Amino acid sequence: MGAKDFFPAYSPPFSRWLVLLSVLFYVQGSCAVVIGHDSLLRRNSTLLTTQEYRDRRADLIAEERALRFDTQRIRNATAKELRAVEIVDELRKREQASVWYADPNKEPGMPYLWAKDTIAQTDLFKLIKKMPKGGLLHAHLEAICDASYLLKLALDYPTIHVRTASSLNSSAPFPTPIFLPLSQAQANQYTNNSLPTSPEYQPNSWAAINRVRDGFPSELGGPLGFDKWIINSLTISAEDTYTQYNTTAKIWAKFTNTFIAAFGLVRYEPILQRYIDQLLVSQIEDGISYVEIRLGFSSTRGVISADGTRNLTNSQVMDLTQNVISGVRARLKEEGREDDFVGARVIYSATRSISYDEMVKQLNDCLALKEEFPELLAVGFDMAGQEEPGHPLIFFAEALLNFRAEAERRGLDIPFMFHAGETLDDGGEVDSNLYDAFLLGAQRVGHGFSLAKHPLLMQKYRENGIAVEVCPISNELLRLTRSANTHTLPILLNNGVPVALSSDDPAVFQNPGLSFDFYQVWFIPIEFLLQEKTYILAPTKAIVASDITNILSLGQLARQSLEHSSLNLTAKASALRLWEKRWDEFIDYIVASG
Amino acid sequence: MGAKDFFPAYSPPFSRWLVLLSVLFYVQGSCAVVIGHDSLLRRNSTLLTTQEYRDRRADLIAEERALRFDTQRIRNATAKELRAVEIVDELRKREQASVWYADPNKEPGMPYLWAKDTIAQTDLFKLIKKMPKGGLLHAHLEAICDASYLLKLALDYPTIHVRTASSLNSSAPFPTPIFLPLSQAQANQYTNNSLPTSPEYQPNSWAAINRVRDGFPSELGGPLGFDKWIINSLTISAEDTYTQYNTTAKIWAKFTNTFIAAFGLVRYEPILQRYIDQLLVSQIEDGISYVEIRLGFSSTRGVISADGTRNLTNSQVMDLTQNVISGVRARLKEEGREDDFVGARVIYSATRSISYDEMVKQLNDCLALKEEFPELLAVGFDMAGQEEPGHPLIFFAEALLNFRAEAERRGLDIPFMFHAGETLDDGGEVDSNLYDAFLLGAQRVGHGFSLAKHPLLMQKYRENGIAVEVCPISNELLRLTRSANTHTLPILLNNGVPVALSSDDPAVFQNPGLSFDFYQVWFIPIEFLLQEKTYILAPTKAIVASDITNILSLGQLARQSLEHSSLNLTAKASALRLWEKRWDEFIDYIVASG
Repeated sequence: MGAKDFFPAYSPPFSRWLVLLSVLFYVQGSCAVVIGHDSLLRRNSTLLTTQEYRDRRADLIAEERALRFDTQRIRNATAKELRAVEIVDELRKREQASVWYADPNKEPGMPYLWAKDTIAQTDLFKLIKKMPKGGLLHAHLEAICDASYLLKLALDYPTIHVRTASSLNSSAPFPTPIFLPLSQAQANQYTNNSLPTSPEYQPNSWAAINRVRDGFPSELGGPLGFDKWIINSLTISAEDTYTQYNTTAKIWAKFTNTFIAAFGLVRYEPILQRYIDQLLVSQIEDGISYVEIRLGFSSTRGVISADGTRNLTNSQVMDLTQNVISGVRARLKEEGREDDFVGARVIYSATRSISYDEMVKQLNDCLALKEEFPELLAVGFDMAGQEEPGHPLIFFAEALLNFRAEAERRGLDIPFMFHAGETLDDGGEVDSNLYDAFLLGAQRVGHGFSLAKHPLLMQKYRENGIAVEVCPISNELLRLTRSANTHTLPILLNNGVPVALSSDDPAVFQNPGLSFDFYQVWFIPIEFLLQEKTYILAPTKAIVASDITNILSLGQLARQSLEHSSLNLTAKASALRLWEKRWDEFIDYIVASG
Repeated sequence: MGAKDFFPAYSPPFSRWLVLLSVLFYVQGSCAVVIGHDSLLRRNSTLLTTQEYRDRRADLIAEERALRFDTQRIRNATAKELRAVEIVDELRKREQASVWYADPNKEPGMPYLWAKDTIAQTDLFKLIKKMPKGGLLHAHLEAICDASYLLKLALDYPTIHVRTASSLNSSAPFPTPIFLPLSQAQANQYTNNSLPTSPEYQPNSWAAINRVRDGFPSELGGPLGFDKWIINSLTISAEDTYTQYNTTAKIWAKFTNTFIAAFGLVRYEPILQRYIDQLLVSQIEDGISYVEIRLGFSSTRGVISADGTRNLTNSQVMDLTQNVISGVRARLKEEGREDDFVGARVIYSATRSISYDEMVKQLNDCLALKEEFPELLAVGFDMAGQEEPGHPLIFFAEALLNFRAEAERRGLDIPFMFHAGETLDDGGEVDSNLYDAFLLGAQRVGHGFSLAKHPLLMQKYRENGIAVEVCPISNELLRLTRSANTHTLPILLNNGVPVALSSDDPAVFQNPGLSFDFYQVWFIPIEFLLQEKTYILAPTKAIVASDITNILSLGQLARQSLEHSSLNLTAKASALRLWEKRWDEFIDYIVASG
């Protein structure tokens, strides 16, 4: 029997079968759709000419791109901006060939920690460094300043003590160091303790940081070995994220340990002062003019006073922060650089793993602090921490609704800025935080990595102007995506969801400022170097360039970070004016160099 | 100066500022949206109660899920099916805990080649093996049968010769083996040639396969070392994809070499006969009842006759294929299993790297062959090969429009089934193949990995019933995604784009049948095991289960593969009836085992 015996004779043109089709296959509620759409290829009854086809294609592409976040910015581009686009695209293409495709082990958007040194040497990166980046809207206090800087600060204070859960030796991975500033009275008890590097070390007993460093044995590298241990404890390395901790659970365990290590250092009054100062200065050096810092206020997260004898009150912590911000502003003004910095504010950040009752307590704390520091503090309320094991928002729904009502009664404006969608989940309890963030009226959402899976929610976020604080390098290092070129960001951008690029935990991810994030996301769209091809993408409509994201797109992302900041109207207008001024200078710089 | 000096006094409620807002920030065409959407939290002027909030939440989730591909199937589920869902969800949760989260090095949806052995031992996988899977719509001839099976076939034919570009030794990676069946006259010239494993080997000179195997030196593992070399040449290993060839360019080079190695073996008349037979039998064993094979017909892709003296004509290749299909059907009938197999057909597959003129020639060949084999052959036309370096569809637009017109003139129905969107590109020339596939009236699209980035196109694909042949394991091993849990498939499913799961190149990816694909995609949605939590997802509306994808979803995916096959109406109706019958038996089996 041949195939012809099995398959009925060739069937007549499809149209005749259409009625039969809908009868035959309407089984179980799903209808087989096989009618094709040849009508697309027709003008009346005639097939399209190639030119008509190209026109139709250009229209379709333009229709889809109209959804994008940068459409208007590109449409309204000045002649000078268009020239800058050309120059930068040319540079980008050149370095794609000379840097990324010249080495078979490299490609655009490749894993960040393998790419970082190469990126830093490109002219494109040096250009992005100069770009005014607007606001940093998502970053956690303890993980912003460079790890080596934090270590340097720590070594200035002999009151800092360290302990470990086991002794250090070369035959096992080093334990996480726990730091704590002790009062003189406390410190006196530990002056003769065995060091963590000694076989006699009593687990979890304190030793002064300088004693431990000076006594670090030479077989473990001596004092420099100590520094390496601390810095490794404060950061995630390529080996950590790409090899050793390659599941979500494992990398979050490592990540949590970096916070445990940083915590006892950052939350010490004299260090905190210098740390916040450096935090602001380092962002400003990267072209960031405004920062919203996520800060935790739970009772176990106190800041210890200079003499090590007590916890600062939350009000004292806020006063300290405010004074540092004012100090940085004053210094910049003296240098004639006051336009480089429009301010910094604090988002009240709880953790999502706490109990319902504890959350109610923190929500009340937040209201009280907001009344005391109406402009600096609690410009938003958030819950941080890994979403999977933590409670979803719906768990706290009643408390959050009550908070909203109470804030309204007191006339306090504390928008929600929830972590949501920092997960690979699809439609489960974790991913569903994105529904609650929306329904609870969040003004922004942290991460929103899984928002790309939600067609209706993306539309709602767009229509309601809910910005997503996307943290590409953070998401990569915490194993949500292999690298920048497989991140979901382009989906959000193509759907017109407002996005503010953020660094999340720059210290942990070895990712100072926002320049690396801007560089990496730019390479998410891969453009292969096609040779000797004469067609172009959308011949009748292409305005600027054949690729979808250009330097104006990056500018629009930067601008959006200010638009979606919590600055009040006057301050925001001023910040945007300053940003536009710096942007113009940046464009001038590009055109002059081209 | 304190922060209060810088920040203006606390601003009045937002509504008053709304007019001012739109004036202030309408700069450069983009408007700062910071109005929030507190109205969501209100019923008239009162804030929602928790219950009202939960109802609104359930409505929102239901509204979004209505877009999904499986909504109707789940809504119309029988009581028996709902019971099966419960049983399978219970099994899935149990094995998530006992298999995937019990070992810190494992997680659901983890890299396939690291997960494969573990998957194969689960009860859930054994269940999926039994599931009727409908059609396999995307698989390339040379890469379907297991590599060790192909090697076994090759060793049966002493006429097969092998050559390499350099000699083999333990100090360098082994070169790719090139195979060719030689005629007796040709073979006679090479009987005394040095072997590729000899230092005297003359690069690219032929040696009989059995001589090379028998003479494989013991330091390279002897004959078993030969087998290992050939199988490694025909497959991509975990080491290859996750470590050694970790860029798109490198992994495609390796991938292309597997085809080069397979080519000379598969395209030999007596092997091809047995190979196609095994291809069908192995799919049938995995519950696949219908296959559409992509087959290349270019002049350089001939099939060599049994005596090694000539190329078969394309008609002869088709006759051979038809006879094998008929033979398998006859055997199954004898065994009383004729319902397990509804047929196989061939998609004409060109490669996209050829010249415009060569493409015109192949399009004409395709029309001619279709006239000769109207039901078996050319049930679709495609262009295979890596999209990045190959030509985009727009390059061939004129030829494709002419082909469409000519097919219509001759009354031939040859739908386009283009590879498109098998890329990480975003809006560039490569990714734009998705626009052209749509505008050229494609009935299906191969891969569509980047379709997730196209909100408008996803809607068009859905409305026009254009199915995407998604190949999750292929995409992972070719470095479009780290692993199943970061694949874009959930985005297509949540947008209601029709999807048919496919294996692409099961031999290369060590992925027989479709069971592993079904298993892995099922774990794309991660469900963490949340303990002691009392909330549920959508309390007032949840029908079946709290997670978004269940066994009925998998069934719907299987069913869709038949709905979107190229079977004509009568054959399709029959195939769907048979599938529903097997599905019912499958559900019965689950319920009986529960």
